[in-house]
Amino acid sequence: MQELIFDNNVASCLDRCIGVMAPQGVFVIADTNTNDLVVNRMRAESQRIAQAPAIVINSGDVNKNLESLSYVWEQLGALGASRHSLVVNVGGGMVTDLGGFAAATFKRGVPFINIPTTLLGAVDAAVGGKTGINFNGLKNEIGAFAPACAVIISTTFFPTLPEAELLSGYAEMLKHGLLAGRKECDELMRYNIADNDQSHLLKLLEESVRIKVDIVEKDPHERGLRKALNLGHTVGHAFEALALSREQPVLHGYAVAWGLVIELILSHLQLGFSSAELQRLASYVLQNYGAFHITCHDYPELLRLMRHDKKNLNPDTVNFTLLRKVGDPVLNSTATDDDIKTALDLYRDLFHI
Amino acid sequence: MQELIFDNNVASCLDRCIGVMAPQGVFVIADTNTNDLVVNRMRAESQRIAQAPAIVINSGDVNKNLESLSYVWEQLGALGASRHSLVVNVGGGMVTDLGGFAAATFKRGVPFINIPTTLLGAVDAAVGGKTGINFNGLKNEIGAFAPACAVIISTTFFPTLPEAELLSGYAEMLKHGLLAGRKECDELMRYNIADNDQSHLLKLLEESVRIKVDIVEKDPHERGLRKALNLGHTVGHAFEALALSREQPVLHGYAVAWGLVIELILSHLQLGFSSAELQRLASYVLQNYGAFHITCHDYPELLRLMRHDKKNLNPDTVNFTLLRKVGDPVLNSTATDDDIKTALDLYRDLFHI
Repeated sequence: MQELIFDNNVASCLDRCIGVMAPQGVFVIADTNTNDLVVNRMRAESQRIAQAPAIVINSGDVNKNLESLSYVWEQLGALGASRHSLVVNVGGGMVTDLGGFAAATFKRGVPFINIPTTLLGAVDAAVGGKTGINFNGLKNEIGAFAPACAVIISTTFFPTLPEAELLSGYAEMLKHGLLAGRKECDELMRYNIADNDQSHLLKLLEESVRIKVDIVEKDPHERGLRKALNLGHTVGHAFEALALSREQPVLHGYAVAWGLVIELILSHLQLGFSSAELQRLASYVLQNYGAFHITCHDYPELLRLMRHDKKNLNPDTVNFTLLRKVGDPVLNSTATDDDIKTALDLYRDLFHI
Repeated sequence: MQELIFDNNVASCLDRCIGVMAPQGVFVIADTNTNDLVVNRMRAESQRIAQAPAIVINSGDVNKNLESLSYVWEQLGALGASRHSLVVNVGGGMVTDLGGFAAATFKRGVPFINIPTTLLGAVDAAVGGKTGINFNGLKNEIGAFAPACAVIISTTFFPTLPEAELLSGYAEMLKHGLLAGRKECDELMRYNIADNDQSHLLKLLEESVRIKVDIVEKDPHERGLRKALNLGHTVGHAFEALALSREQPVLHGYAVAWGLVIELILSHLQLGFSSAELQRLASYVLQNYGAFHITCHDYPELLRLMRHDKKNLNPDTVNFTLLRKVGDPVLNSTATDDDIKTALDLYRDLFHI
């Protein structure tokens, strides 16, 4: 079970955790950015981290690969890490995914703590036990389900993030709100990211992470219920891949935001999801995330990408998590090519493209 | 939980397992030896395996490395394996360790079945959920605790093994007997490997695996009780490494057999383990395994190797599992350098070297 700590005094929380665990050696894993911006600052505030060696990998999802993993394993060995040591991952999803997998597999498992430094990392990658690396051109192709023993979640590191990064993470929070209920959704749509109200954001973040954790604890290995968290992602991943192939990559959360709109359109068409709620989300997304430009010439490629999603079981149809209403997900929904094309048409209407 | 099947009709057991699991695709992992000798033969007898692609790695512990692992991951991807597929590992410990780890980490986990083809594999590596590869010159440095969903154990493949390979596996069975009790030990010492009585051996093997599984189920992640299985291995690993450094490698089980003798001498010195039982084991080992030649000039290197064992916590002393009497292990026993030197002296006396 993961201990979740929501607190902006990260260094003192970390010292307390390490004090309780009493490990034989602490090893920090960070990327070039978080090592400079976060770890070195944290050393001044945390007694337990002050002397801990850092294993630093190159930043960027493109480095979430076997080469970086192998480097981390080598360094853990060279620095004398044992099964009784502790790894502290400090960074966004790239660091917590790779560092978590490295820790979970070094000597068959060293305990680790995650300190997410981005909103997307805090609400998504750092919590729930999914770890891994990209391999052979595929995202998260290799990995393990391995929960951090603790995750320290704060908004401390967000002021240095570009607003687009915050919006990217916020899209996953919107997804959790849609899975949870009207009240949670309303609260999220009322908050304005640009206000930068840290204590309010931390409260919303805590609610959002708890929604995810409730689902994950019921289905840690994604055999059923956890698929609810895939809402927005079947289309989102296809948009992300299309954007990459155009050499105009988009942030993950932006793709999820657009994916949510299209999957709610499908929910409306197939399950009678409320048109008013759909309109509300669509205008929120259009206003905050803008539009992702597609034409009908992109449809065949988008359909191909959706069918090849890791979670798709049957290559003849495409699997979705849809919503009957806000707070009422329907897992293992399927849609035909025609359904999806209609939804993409309606998205273009709604977004005036 | 692992299903354990003890049956010499391997192909029909496998077909039954696959029928129940109804996976989307079956992928065999074998090494160059077991692919030729076992998999190709099994295809004629098993409907479910007849058409399954085999991913073949080079045989030998030296190939239990990241390169082979990476090759298996690539092949699983290229052949279209999914989380709903099944991996069948056919081979000795090298194949079940590496294949199990590959399966456990491909798309965060594909179910796998182990079919051990050596006695050592059947009694040790294939059962109990330890998977992994050698890395950076260290054995099993990277891996995971990931149980096979089923292990099909037979003696079918043993007649083609050299007698030394059988003896190597038998040493781990002796270890299990010493942990379990007098009756189990007596039975094992009465059986003569050279008799090649397959049905008797399968019965002994089943008893032996059950002893291991009873221990593993109480402590799957080796936090306490599972350390009992380390009996004979602190010294055994040191002998194995010393032999390797002399470029005269010995089989793992042989090293364990000699390790058992020395650790029972320590048990006698520290815990009053019966001298008669010790003599009995020592003469059994001398008769079947011969002696490992050491002089007092080897002591410093042996002590260094024991202190650097993965499971050793404190580099000032050496950690052992010892026995108060047969069937009564004492975990986390320690010994000083002088104790160990005395035990090595007594071993040389007993073995006339």
